Amino acid sequence: MAAKGDLMAWIARKGFVWGPSPELYGGLAGFYDYAPLGKLLKNRVEAVIQETFVKHEFWEVECPIITPEQVWQASGHLSGFTDPLIKDEQGNVYRADHLVKERLGKEAVELDGKTVSLEAATPEQLIAVIQAEGITSPRGKKLIPEIKQHSLMLGTTVGLGQEAYNRPETATTTYLPFTRYLSFFRDKLPFGVFQVGKAFRNEVSPRQHILRQREFTQAEAQLFLFEDQKQPYEPFRDVKDDRAAFLPAGGEQQDMTFGEAHKRGHFTSEAYGWVIRLAYTLFKNMGIPADKMRLRQHAEDEKAFYADDAWDVEVELQSFGWYEICGVHDRTTYDLGQHAKHAKQRLVARNEATGKKEVPHVLEIAFGTDRPVFSLMDIFYKYDEQKEQDTFVIPAMMAPIQAAVFPLVNKEDLPDIARQIYEDVADAGLVATYDRSGSVGRRYARMDEVGTPYCITVDFDTKKDGTVTVRERDSTKQVRVKKEDVVAFIKDAMSGKQKI
Amino acid sequence: MAAKGDLMAWIARKGFVWGPSPELYGGLAGFYDYAPLGKLLKNRVEAVIQETFVKHEFWEVECPIITPEQVWQASGHLSGFTDPLIKDEQGNVYRADHLVKERLGKEAVELDGKTVSLEAATPEQLIAVIQAEGITSPRGKKLIPEIKQHSLMLGTTVGLGQEAYNRPETATTTYLPFTRYLSFFRDKLPFGVFQVGKAFRNEVSPRQHILRQREFTQAEAQLFLFEDQKQPYEPFRDVKDDRAAFLPAGGEQQDMTFGEAHKRGHFTSEAYGWVIRLAYTLFKNMGIPADKMRLRQHAEDEKAFYADDAWDVEVELQSFGWYEICGVHDRTTYDLGQHAKHAKQRLVARNEATGKKEVPHVLEIAFGTDRPVFSLMDIFYKYDEQKEQDTFVIPAMMAPIQAAVFPLVNKEDLPDIARQIYEDVADAGLVATYDRSGSVGRRYARMDEVGTPYCITVDFDTKKDGTVTVRERDSTKQVRVKKEDVVAFIKDAMSGKQKI
Repeated sequence: MAAKGDLMAWIARKGFVWGPSPELYGGLAGFYDYAPLGKLLKNRVEAVIQETFVKHEFWEVECPIITPEQVWQASGHLSGFTDPLIKDEQGNVYRADHLVKERLGKEAVELDGKTVSLEAATPEQLIAVIQAEGITSPRGKKLIPEIKQHSLMLGTTVGLGQEAYNRPETATTTYLPFTRYLSFFRDKLPFGVFQVGKAFRNEVSPRQHILRQREFTQAEAQLFLFEDQKQPYEPFRDVKDDRAAFLPAGGEQQDMTFGEAHKRGHFTSEAYGWVIRLAYTLFKNMGIPADKMRLRQHAEDEKAFYADDAWDVEVELQSFGWYEICGVHDRTTYDLGQHAKHAKQRLVARNEATGKKEVPHVLEIAFGTDRPVFSLMDIFYKYDEQKEQDTFVIPAMMAPIQAAVFPLVNKEDLPDIARQIYEDVADAGLVATYDRSGSVGRRYARMDEVGTPYCITVDFDTKKDGTVTVRERDSTKQVRVKKEDVVAFIKDAMSGKQKI
Repeated sequence: MAAKGDLMAWIARKGFVWGPSPELYGGLAGFYDYAPLGKLLKNRVEAVIQETFVKHEFWEVECPIITPEQVWQASGHLSGFTDPLIKDEQGNVYRADHLVKERLGKEAVELDGKTVSLEAATPEQLIAVIQAEGITSPRGKKLIPEIKQHSLMLGTTVGLGQEAYNRPETATTTYLPFTRYLSFFRDKLPFGVFQVGKAFRNEVSPRQHILRQREFTQAEAQLFLFEDQKQPYEPFRDVKDDRAAFLPAGGEQQDMTFGEAHKRGHFTSEAYGWVIRLAYTLFKNMGIPADKMRLRQHAEDEKAFYADDAWDVEVELQSFGWYEICGVHDRTTYDLGQHAKHAKQRLVARNEATGKKEVPHVLEIAFGTDRPVFSLMDIFYKYDEQKEQDTFVIPAMMAPIQAAVFPLVNKEDLPDIARQIYEDVADAGLVATYDRSGSVGRRYARMDEVGTPYCITVDFDTKKDGTVTVRERDSTKQVRVKKEDVVAFIKDAMSGKQKI
């Protein structure tokens, strides 16, 4: 038995995530199964993403996972998307930057009087640190001072001889139909598109559960606009009074409005500020509390090769402290420029303001959907010491199962009445479950363990006066509601219109 | 310009599907992009799948695409999942069974007095037919009488040396967590799980647009139950009076109820009949007309290696005639048996009725979600000769965009009022678009071309009496509705409660 209050044990035991998958064959590191409750939670997270992007007039697309090698030559991934590996004298392989980070317990080191982020360090810098600090392998073995760049790309062969890859990110595949978008949007910029789909990274030793997988679901949105449309950017006016915690590069964390952040020069443009605020809104809409979120700007040496400016959304996890769950990048003309060059085609649009054909800029939001799923489990999982029981106090709108229906006992027609209410709740589009086994107390406990906010019990009074008991998870308060009103009651309670 | 009324040209031009993808790099056969309208349509199809399975108490899971080779050794795919390839004297490669089918214009041939389906023919049988009929390549070249089995599996290497594959089907990955399911469902059978996700088949020359891709989205549902639970199967009673067109193996197509079909011995069990009816219901719920659907039983030599009995759902397409869009299989204990053997673990559950531990049977529904998407486009696309215009008469519930909002002219505050109505419609969860450019007639035509069922126009009367015009796509009838009632009006119209 796992220790009481162990998040990972609860995640597997209650049917959220199983793995590494396939467990039946010993499991492959970095691959996981979403079990029924985890899949319901992931669906809710992805529904919020879809609704939020659509509401902001981004249009969804779906592009293939498998992509020919020319694409990744152009994007820079084939040469640049690598991890530095190092061996110890026994031949065990480690990711050098992570090893140094863990052994030193810090993210950055001083080298020649400069602060260097370890993730951004060159192989030479890593070896210099390893030698200066006398770093050994976790088993205390000597490290061989040689770093090999390991490609994170998962290759395959299509047909009889076309080299191709499982995409390492969705974004590049989203850019490729650019000229098609122009015609779809009738040559009017700005326009936005988004994609949610699988991406793959062949990390050598993935850890941290679903936060760092070899196969994961990525969501990203791309706003295409001309450089002169980045500022002023009209929609920024509607959001400039929204607040967040900001941690600019080299500065202190501070609460302020997006308007103030822009005035202080934290964003390169209003449009970029608007996109950062949209990313922040996504996670707020998923129910992540504002006091667990902040926006952090990348240091100069930490930015990806394609990014002119980069801000992350970070959440504060019980398990891992402040953790990146989303990146927002000003990719300028990098991607369209690269693909135009490699495909030998012009990727431009006519800017009515200048009368010229120009390469549009791209502002991007990119993240793995697995990370907010993990964050919600991490933040809202609690062990109730008094009841000696797991609880999951996730906001009702995000709960995997929204309502459970119980007959008090399996006598007379209580099960039939309960079953009918279950059908009504399910027909109303709520995810419901019907449970007739064990004491009602035990059934409440089972639902508290998985975060179900409302339990509906049919008892003998139901037969007399047509009412049922609705019990709320966190307060454990119970109220009686007419059985024909129960669907509307729960919907109102979930949206906050109705208090229990 | 493509010919008027050309389905494929309309699909690409209006932003449903683009490809083969990536077009910018010349395209790779068998890979397509879902453009914005195609993606909205695919989302609706997948939402119906999810709702229908959840309503029938199947629980969704999500398993990795990349799976280690042991899994596919056990499932039989590594050795058995191949296509027969043949070369001509110039070295051009063809899929032998398809080549013979096309050259002869039939699906089956007579060999030694027996009817042999070409898809099921052995390499020796194919060569015999090629020689007997003097079949040449499509370019008239001689075929070399030698067939090579080409694996359809897309291999890759995970980590530094683990051989793995992009799964060729989702189903096998769904079976692997069997012992986890047992605990999740508290050891009670039957239970059902389903999965919607990508699968991959490295066909040598894929054709037929998104009907036959190398990368496609598969949806499948698995009902686990003990053999003695297959009949009687209680839930069959609720559906036995539902009707469909049945084409049993070796018989004639006939309309009947599921109950009659069972009485005539067309299903091996009531449970299998219930699952076939559930598959049929899925496509009915997507809006495919009953007179375009039939259920067809596989002939003995046509069944997959794992299937005890197999029925297909077929739809009648304008482009390809009767076409398989879904398979329903009684897989008996095949999969759990194979994985138990290869993983050296017992995959059994205790049957309370017999008091014994038994290997459950599995009844399966499996299909690609791309096929119903194509079917809906194929069936409901029309070219209106009179208007000289494309139209898409898809049922309103399935339309990619459900409502368009127009200001009659860009004068006074008509655009502001229209914009507010657009926001209200979008907030109500409908997919809407706002369009202010061109004549209203041109805007109606643009919406007819992509199947938008309702157009809402704000005109000068709106300012006087607060009403707007709602125009229905197929009848082109217009009614005036109060602007605050327009969301409810459209929802009622869509569900058939309100006639226009």
